[in-house]
Amino acid sequence: TTDNFFEKTLAVREIAEIPGMLEFDLPVHGDNRGWFKENFQKEKMVPLGFPESFFAEGKLQNNVSFSRKNVLRGLHAEPWDKYISVADNGRVLGAWVDLREGASFGHVYQTVIDASKGIFVPRGVANGFQVLSDFVSYSYLVNDYWALELKPKYAFVNYADPALGIDWEDVVNAEVSAADEGHPLLEDVTAFTREMV
Amino acid sequence: TTDNFFEKTLAVREIAEIPGMLEFDLPVHGDNRGWFKENFQKEKMVPLGFPESFFAEGKLQNNVSFSRKNVLRGLHAEPWDKYISVADNGRVLGAWVDLREGASFGHVYQTVIDASKGIFVPRGVANGFQVLSDFVSYSYLVNDYWALELKPKYAFVNYADPALGIDWEDVVNAEVSAADEGHPLLEDVTAFTREMV
Ligand SMILES: Cc1cn([C@H]2C[C@H](O)[C@@H](COP(=O)(O)OP(=O)(O)O[C@H]3OC[C@@H](O)[C@H](O)[C@H]3O)O2)c(=O)[nH]c1=O
Ligand SMILES: Cc1cn([C@H]2C[C@H](O)[C@@H](COP(=O)(O)OP(=O)(O)O[C@H]3OC[C@@H](O)[C@H](O)[C@H]3O)O2)c(=O)[nH]c1=O
Repeated sequence: TTDNFFEKTLAVREIAEIPGMLEFDLPVHGDNRGWFKENFQKEKMVPLGFPESFFAEGKLQNNVSFSRKNVLRGLHAEPWDKYISVADNGRVLGAWVDLREGASFGHVYQTVIDASKGIFVPRGVANGFQVLSDFVSYSYLVNDYWALELKPKYAFVNYADPALGIDWEDVVNAEVSAADEGHPLLEDVTAFTREMV
Repeated sequence: TTDNFFEKTLAVREIAEIPGMLEFDLPVHGDNRGWFKENFQKEKMVPLGFPESFFAEGKLQNNVSFSRKNVLRGLHAEPWDKYISVADNGRVLGAWVDLREGASFGHVYQTVIDASKGIFVPRGVANGFQVLSDFVSYSYLVNDYWALELKPKYAFVNYADPALGIDWEDVVNAEVSAADEGHPLLEDVTAFTREMV
């Protein structure tokens, strides 16, 4: 897990493996009632490096998924940016694979996240996670709109591809969707081109 | 609880008691993994009546609080709009009190919400909730930035004021903050003026 949970200082770290990816430490304030966090605060986080371009088109969607232990969702890349985080006391193993054409294609980053982390994932980078706690509420902001008809235009890579080297727990028995089981191995993925992202 | 949870049609209802307040039904999609919802989707919800003005100043904050059963937070009115929702399987009794000067001052709306509801609360309307489930993740979007120094400019009303007629459960033993215990009765509240909101 992350080494501490409460009262971190808001801070950001660039993820060297995947250009443009950012990992934020978020202050979580605990008291007799539970806790409170500013999960996203534009005025504080843009100066730290959260891209102002996230808001350029004025589009906004907030997604929430709720999942049981061992559920594994991903790995999905779409033509929009994501700011992802955990919204309860749960923990996930987050994993990201760069599917953009270029030198970082295929690069992987993985880390355990709880509510005290926020991850900025640039468009074209595949996103996924496995639930380590009994359940988890997983919340994210995106800056363009999903549509079922557009799914053929999104890029996916198979979570179980050993070439990725992701440290999933008991991946054979992970609870997944039929769609996620069918995604291609990294070597068969068509990269996101500049035109797509 | 709300009468159904999964696969509602996205819809909106105006709250007659409090002008400008909106209650959305959100589609929640369940499967073998848990569930997924578009908690906020600007392109679909603005046409239904979610105010475009929410985005006028380009400010955005997303807050998450996590609370145990019987915790009661509120009632707080600030000079920003809120879009509130539950982000897990929990339930809360939500309550809102109009603190804007004018004919609807003191009007109350209360309803039980789970993840299949989204509530738009206009600035100047006090927001609060009590946790009915073992715990709850409560998430909201706001369009201006909180600061401790500005707290004297916010408006509060005491959750325990019987004049509000809110159906809290066992309000005497509710888990609250010291600050919330000290807020004025409705009759002593200074209304939000047009200049404040
Ligand atoms: C992404 C998305 C999905 N849905 C619906 C379609 C299905 O009925 C249900 C679940 O969709 P999945 O694609 O199976 O969701 P999931 O596997 O959880 O993937 C999502 O979460 C992880 C994210 O990385 C990814 O963007 C997103 O596709 O929700 C919507 O209604 N709106 C959406 O934006
Ligand atoms: C609202 C807010 C609070 N905080 C800090 C201050 C405290 O250390 C901690 C909890 O703050 P409280 O004011 O006690 O939070 P709470 O009682 O949960 O009230 C909040 O949730 C309900 C909302 O109606 C209200 O806007 C908001 O004040 O979080 C922040 O850092 N940023 C914020 O935006």
